[in-house]
Amino acid sequence: MIKSIAVLTSGTDSPGMNAAIRAVTRTALFEKSIVWGVTDGYYGLVHDQIEPLKSTSVSDIIQRGGTFLGTSFCPEFETSAGRKKAFDNLKKHEIDGMIVIGGDGTMRGAKIFNDEFDFPIVGIPATIENDIWGTDYTIGCDTAANTVVEALNKLRDTALSHRRVIVVEVAGKKCGWLPMVSGIASGAAYILVPEYKVDIDELVEELKKRHSCGKTYSLIVVADGCGDIMKIGKEIADKTKLDTRISVLGLILRGGSPSVEDRVKASRLGEKAALALLSGLYNMVVGYKKNDIVTIALNDAVNDKKDLDREYVRLSKILT
Amino acid sequence: MIKSIAVLTSGTDSPGMNAAIRAVTRTALFEKSIVWGVTDGYYGLVHDQIEPLKSTSVSDIIQRGGTFLGTSFCPEFETSAGRKKAFDNLKKHEIDGMIVIGGDGTMRGAKIFNDEFDFPIVGIPATIENDIWGTDYTIGCDTAANTVVEALNKLRDTALSHRRVIVVEVAGKKCGWLPMVSGIASGAAYILVPEYKVDIDELVEELKKRHSCGKTYSLIVVADGCGDIMKIGKEIADKTKLDTRISVLGLILRGGSPSVEDRVKASRLGEKAALALLSGLYNMVVGYKKNDIVTIALNDAVNDKKDLDREYVRLSKILT
Amino acid sequence: MIKSIAVLTSGTDSPGMNAAIRAVTRTALFEKSIVWGVTDGYYGLVHDQIEPLKSTSVSDIIQRGGTFLGTSFCPEFETSAGRKKAFDNLKKHEIDGMIVIGGDGTMRGAKIFNDEFDFPIVGIPATIENDIWGTDYTIGCDTAANTVVEALNKLRDTALSHRRVIVVEVAGKKCGWLPMVSGIASGAAYILVPEYKVDIDELVEELKKRHSCGKTYSLIVVADGCGDIMKIGKEIADKTKLDTRISVLGLILRGGSPSVEDRVKASRLGEKAALALLSGLYNMVVGYKKNDIVTIALNDAVNDKKDLDREYVRLSKILT
Amino acid sequence: MIKSIAVLTSGTDSPGMNAAIRAVTRTALFEKSIVWGVTDGYYGLVHDQIEPLKSTSVSDIIQRGGTFLGTSFCPEFETSAGRKKAFDNLKKHEIDGMIVIGGDGTMRGAKIFNDEFDFPIVGIPATIENDIWGTDYTIGCDTAANTVVEALNKLRDTALSHRRVIVVEVAGKKCGWLPMVSGIASGAAYILVPEYKVDIDELVEELKKRHSCGKTYSLIVVADGCGDIMKIGKEIADKTKLDTRISVLGLILRGGSPSVEDRVKASRLGEKAALALLSGLYNMVVGYKKNDIVTIALNDAVNDKKDLDREYVRLSKILT
Repeated sequence: MIKSIAVLTSGTDSPGMNAAIRAVTRTALFEKSIVWGVTDGYYGLVHDQIEPLKSTSVSDIIQRGGTFLGTSFCPEFETSAGRKKAFDNLKKHEIDGMIVIGGDGTMRGAKIFNDEFDFPIVGIPATIENDIWGTDYTIGCDTAANTVVEALNKLRDTALSHRRVIVVEVAGKKCGWLPMVSGIASGAAYILVPEYKVDIDELVEELKKRHSCGKTYSLIVVADGCGDIMKIGKEIADKTKLDTRISVLGLILRGGSPSVEDRVKASRLGEKAALALLSGLYNMVVGYKKNDIVTIALNDAVNDKKDLDREYVRLSKILT
Repeated sequence: MIKSIAVLTSGTDSPGMNAAIRAVTRTALFEKSIVWGVTDGYYGLVHDQIEPLKSTSVSDIIQRGGTFLGTSFCPEFETSAGRKKAFDNLKKHEIDGMIVIGGDGTMRGAKIFNDEFDFPIVGIPATIENDIWGTDYTIGCDTAANTVVEALNKLRDTALSHRRVIVVEVAGKKCGWLPMVSGIASGAAYILVPEYKVDIDELVEELKKRHSCGKTYSLIVVADGCGDIMKIGKEIADKTKLDTRISVLGLILRGGSPSVEDRVKASRLGEKAALALLSGLYNMVVGYKKNDIVTIALNDAVNDKKDLDREYVRLSKILT
Repeated sequence: MIKSIAVLTSGTDSPGMNAAIRAVTRTALFEKSIVWGVTDGYYGLVHDQIEPLKSTSVSDIIQRGGTFLGTSFCPEFETSAGRKKAFDNLKKHEIDGMIVIGGDGTMRGAKIFNDEFDFPIVGIPATIENDIWGTDYTIGCDTAANTVVEALNKLRDTALSHRRVIVVEVAGKKCGWLPMVSGIASGAAYILVPEYKVDIDELVEELKKRHSCGKTYSLIVVADGCGDIMKIGKEIADKTKLDTRISVLGLILRGGSPSVEDRVKASRLGEKAALALLSGLYNMVVGYKKNDIVTIALNDAVNDKKDLDREYVRLSKILT
Repeated sequence: MIKSIAVLTSGTDSPGMNAAIRAVTRTALFEKSIVWGVTDGYYGLVHDQIEPLKSTSVSDIIQRGGTFLGTSFCPEFETSAGRKKAFDNLKKHEIDGMIVIGGDGTMRGAKIFNDEFDFPIVGIPATIENDIWGTDYTIGCDTAANTVVEALNKLRDTALSHRRVIVVEVAGKKCGWLPMVSGIASGAAYILVPEYKVDIDELVEELKKRHSCGKTYSLIVVADGCGDIMKIGKEIADKTKLDTRISVLGLILRGGSPSVEDRVKASRLGEKAALALLSGLYNMVVGYKKNDIVTIALNDAVNDKKDLDREYVRLSKILT
């Protein structure tokens, strides 16, 4: 029976991780279990940075971006020697199970660790790119979408004042959720996502049509998985002859105080993950399907590719 | 066959109404139909404030709070004479169907109008209180929740600095969704909602326990349907002997630039409402069930009482 | 020679207090002096809540609202017995001077303490109402003005949608700076401040003129020192027959992450206060005159009444 | 006597331009004069895009970023032929004077135009970089500083979670005001400005010292006039061996709803500019010296180089 669990955050940080840690901690304590915080992700596991958490350890953190436990990318954990040390540390503290919060790299690490040591793990998906298979939602994506929209709002002021086209790069290596949703929400003229072939000529046609109808400016949102933003911007400028600028929204999308949705959904995932692990259900990732909490086999979360909801694609065509 | 539709907003404004109007308009135009904007809600219907909308009529409004069509409470529309005038105006412009955006008062008006004249209507639920039966979501509730959380974040600074209890009143006449969700998201110490009997003594016990564990401040969220905030605050102060203040978040919760969720969900509802009406489906309200769009009979939306998701109630107990 | 100083915050909290404490601390340490933090204001002085501060004690606080040292109103410090205990505690720790951060109540306490024990004190004015004589600026007023303007922005959405008059109460017991500045910045139709006699009939005339020129809504800002907002609202409603609502911005104006201006100005005041005290200049308040740092005798800061810049009054008349 | 004036915005947009246009317009109308709005800056002057403004033309714009008149860079206006057309258009409308709002390029254009045609002009400085000689303040700089600080706040979450150094590029081609002020306000570890020789080795020493004292992350703010951010970032990473990332805050700094300070100061400048021009004072720029409004000869505003307040430089050293 699982009575003592560890929690860590790994990979890139995203807003709402703290809410998830807090929910894991308080749920475990509510269930009379022991809960340990591992700092700096898998690195802390390898280097025995493991301390017990109390209810007050997670006070006043639900509103903070980032992760108070710290996070990292840990090459050592990619070696068996490193993972062995991690396992020994868990055993030393008599920890029976672990909750890992992060993106697909994190889940891959969890899978390998689990394969090797048969150690009970539950994953919680957290990444602003919302690119994990099997779940409609990953922690941080709503806050990031609101951050993109806020930035686009500022860029609209400039685009409108200067009668410009502004081409904005948004995180989305293999999944277009973030550029798509924030583009729709901002009334972007065109949205490029990695799920569809980039067709600059079509984009140029749309822009010409749009500007001939009296529109004086355009915002174009481009996922960073669609290619070089400089090249895309230049091609648009050359082919439309419109005053065109680019803007790259980089690291600022990762931080910030989490939105209500991210706080509440992260809390629910944290609670479910803890309850599942403590009741003996593991080697899975908890996620959402249509607002219901579901579980995904670690295997699937790691190996599959997520689709972009076609509803969004259609909507973006009609509304702009 | 329905080829010409009107759209209006009625009752209290909520953030995202503009996104819905925009989606209705662009969808109707995309479908080669005619779309009319009615200003000031049912009042404009009675007084023939009805003008055709073009695609550019709804440019640059998705980011704005309120409703650019205007809204109102219209006593005239509550009389048969008033409704007859409204009907005649719709006929005069050869309008075949209507989309009304608003809260339960708005839907009740739509129901009566429909009963009398058998006029095709689709409703879109919009209210920050999220209190319409049959839908998990109403336009504006996510923005309002984020506004509450922002306010609670400011109040936390003061509560923490002064070691105070701050009791905050939040909109929620008969439905506790807004206070519940924003309370959970803010780490509120206690949340009072109209769905449960108010038990100040239990609250006082919780507060005493909490402050004896080292917590130095508390935020308490109270739905305005739970009674007089002044009395509640005084009773808490008297019984706990803690420095207690109250804060009423009134009208500021109604406005503000809509969140991504409200913009996207309102856009989807607007599109579906227009598509439904134009294809001959009406006398219903469109809403969401677990993130899928559903339809609710006008009758049901008006007559039934919505429950608060128990998941939230349980979560609030464990996390605080 | 002064080598060891204490710092405290007292009275109502305001955003930027942390920046001032941080600057005091780092400046004192830079000057090789000892600096002590007193928690909970004068209460902590009386009850010996006095701990040394290190450079890292003030890390990561410049962005936080409130005061990490805590603050309070302390009746004990208003008695000689209480003040004697405070003095003894300072002596016990061999503290030679003190910096107090707060509003006019705080300065009054400092004055009395100084009169009794001839203990070196420098005051830093901090209050969102900007009501301390001799300085153009008090810590927190810029953040509060931005908070008011943000709230008015939300209220404008509702006022515009409903064609309403919204009457908004803003902090300003005896000084109209905050309502005046935020009213001008928001394009308020009318601003009532305690420095001028309230003339509702003139206000009503202005409103009638305004609405007859095609304006469909109005925001009116009222300082809380101008009388009962309920009465004022009712009188406006009765006399104009316009749909009129009131909104009270209470405690939320006290909190929030400080603006750049408040962070920088508070830092400069903190630095100057520490440098002055350590070099033997005290029994004064540091402030700003036209962006230059000035000193004001404790006596004057406490006893005089501040005027409202007529420039603002004139501007408000022309621009609306 | 000057009875009819034009107003335009030129060059890069900045938040608060609308407040200035509004104040110019309302002041001119208050003084019973005629006021014309020129769209798209000098381009609109050359191409006769000149329309009269009414009081309601400037309603509901004080809260908007950008400029509702539009702005541009206009090569035609750099030729005598272009300027002759501009002059003829002004004469055609019987316009006697002009107010131009923009940065130093705008002022240079105004100077040349004035030299050629002896046409009365008053300039209002507007640029987020605060780099115009003779004035402590230019419209937009306070909003931009707050935008930078907000972005740094988000980046801090990531820096803290990952124990990283983040090097942030901020606008400041020849003047370091914006990076300096926002760096101080954010507790940046180091600030590079164009007024001082970049000394990466000193910076590296400071970082090493800082991180050896237990600080786990650092934000470094670099003016874009200090050189290639990629190179600077790489050099820091190589020499400190710390995990180092860069972030470029580009166009988003230009937009956004203006802060209270920018709204009020822009309003005051607009009013003074209009009053001056109408009373026969011109060929100058209005600005602020220590919060008082001053006038600067067009000649000086264009030719001189502005210094960075040493107070800030000193403060940044002590506080970090």
